[in-house]
Amino acid sequence: MIQISDPSDPRLAPYAAMRERDLVGRAGRFIVEGEVTLRLMLSPRARFRTESILLLPERVAGLAAAIEACPDRPPVYVTDRAVMSAVAGFPIHRGVLAVGIRGDDAGAEVLVPQAAAPALVVGLAGLTNHDNVGGLFRNAAAFGADAVLLDAGTCDPLYRKAIRVSAGAALTVPFARLDPGVDWFATAAALGLEPLALSPSGAEDVADLAPPSRALLILGTEGPGLPASVLARMRGLRIAMAPGFDSLNVATAGAIALHRLACGLRTARDNEHPLP
Amino acid sequence: MIQISDPSDPRLAPYAAMRERDLVGRAGRFIVEGEVTLRLMLSPRARFRTESILLLPERVAGLAAAIEACPDRPPVYVTDRAVMSAVAGFPIHRGVLAVGIRGDDAGAEVLVPQAAAPALVVGLAGLTNHDNVGGLFRNAAAFGADAVLLDAGTCDPLYRKAIRVSAGAALTVPFARLDPGVDWFATAAALGLEPLALSPSGAEDVADLAPPSRALLILGTEGPGLPASVLARMRGLRIAMAPGFDSLNVATAGAIALHRLACGLRTARDNEHPLP
Repeated sequence: MIQISDPSDPRLAPYAAMRERDLVGRAGRFIVEGEVTLRLMLSPRARFRTESILLLPERVAGLAAAIEACPDRPPVYVTDRAVMSAVAGFPIHRGVLAVGIRGDDAGAEVLVPQAAAPALVVGLAGLTNHDNVGGLFRNAAAFGADAVLLDAGTCDPLYRKAIRVSAGAALTVPFARLDPGVDWFATAAALGLEPLALSPSGAEDVADLAPPSRALLILGTEGPGLPASVLARMRGLRIAMAPGFDSLNVATAGAIALHRLACGLRTARDNEHPLP
Repeated sequence: MIQISDPSDPRLAPYAAMRERDLVGRAGRFIVEGEVTLRLMLSPRARFRTESILLLPERVAGLAAAIEACPDRPPVYVTDRAVMSAVAGFPIHRGVLAVGIRGDDAGAEVLVPQAAAPALVVGLAGLTNHDNVGGLFRNAAAFGADAVLLDAGTCDPLYRKAIRVSAGAALTVPFARLDPGVDWFATAAALGLEPLALSPSGAEDVADLAPPSRALLILGTEGPGLPASVLARMRGLRIAMAPGFDSLNVATAGAIALHRLACGLRTARDNEHPLP
């Protein structure tokens, strides 16, 4: 527990100019804000190490036990509201910040369960909206997805707003960044997954899908959707909608498809590990 | 087409102080912003009359045909960016605003299809977040819901942000406000609907549901959820999730349930009106 009263203290440098630096990246670090997200970050479920924590004095007591239990043993800096907001560059109402370390990208081949086991993997293609990416991580966690694969055009799940919208799932669901110009079909083949593209022009209704036990569900942007070259080469799933209205939010559409696929996965896992 | 250069012109009064007045109500009017939403507002699908339109000069040509085709014949005020932002109280980047007239609340008994026909109705209980209400209207439209019923604690679907998040569905999907202290069970009975409460503690898995042909799907807030007194008296639906994660956004959970119910409704309507 370290009291800091100088906004230019170098130990606070990772918290400086939060908004601007979120946009340009921050050298292998990311910012976590708010109590619920920090508790998740400190728990064994988080995939990332906590480098330091910055709290207002009145938030220390409530978080002490969670910090104490975290094996990372991050230093806890305590400062007043004026200093915290001066460092961050805008008012930090909740008074709870932390810096996480990204670590190395594990690689899709490490994150995806091996070819004999059931698997549910989500692929995000060109999703540039942090709300949608955060929402999809939340839905991926809710339906037990094993991993999320991001193409080069998809935005960062560890951006503050994406973490918040994900309800912390961006800290827990494994993800890997794919190389620019990824060939989704080849990626799925290399990982032993059946690629399924969710698209309004998909040939199969997701409600009638017999879910494969190893699926890669690929989601594109709401506007242009997935490139035709991707759609042409794999099974396309559509969600039947009312006439004249064919616009679901991409995270919502993803949730409907993941819900269906997760039913199939549960069946596959039950068969793999039958109850005694 | 009326040029206005004085921000205090009384014809612009309904556009004044938009943010503040959104919070306190605006005497039977509401604000529509952006081209996509205005086009929907002017189309026969919208349930509301357009009282006036306020545009930047460069937006007039692109919208002229849509305005011309609207039988409301709303006056079109044209002003520059500085005046528009001065009136509204903040920068209006898109340069497209309109005022709509709420009109009288039709009442649930008018909006819900009569007891012999299939029906899919959504009930919102205590939803105070405009993103969630907007998202639920979008999902209600996508899955062809006939109406949305709002309890006294649910926020206004005609708040600007709710309209925007709904992708305009708040302008097209019929809704009615119920009296304070509504008894959902009695409301459903009076309308001849089978009440279904979506809740993490629901007894039936929505994936296994045989959808009734006349359903009232009731959704509560994410935190406290529906009151126990409501849940105890009707069929509860749950969405199976991964162990340790039981938190879907309420609009997303609603979409999954509506998708399932809409399948049943399609079947019921096909049986009612068999193909020749």
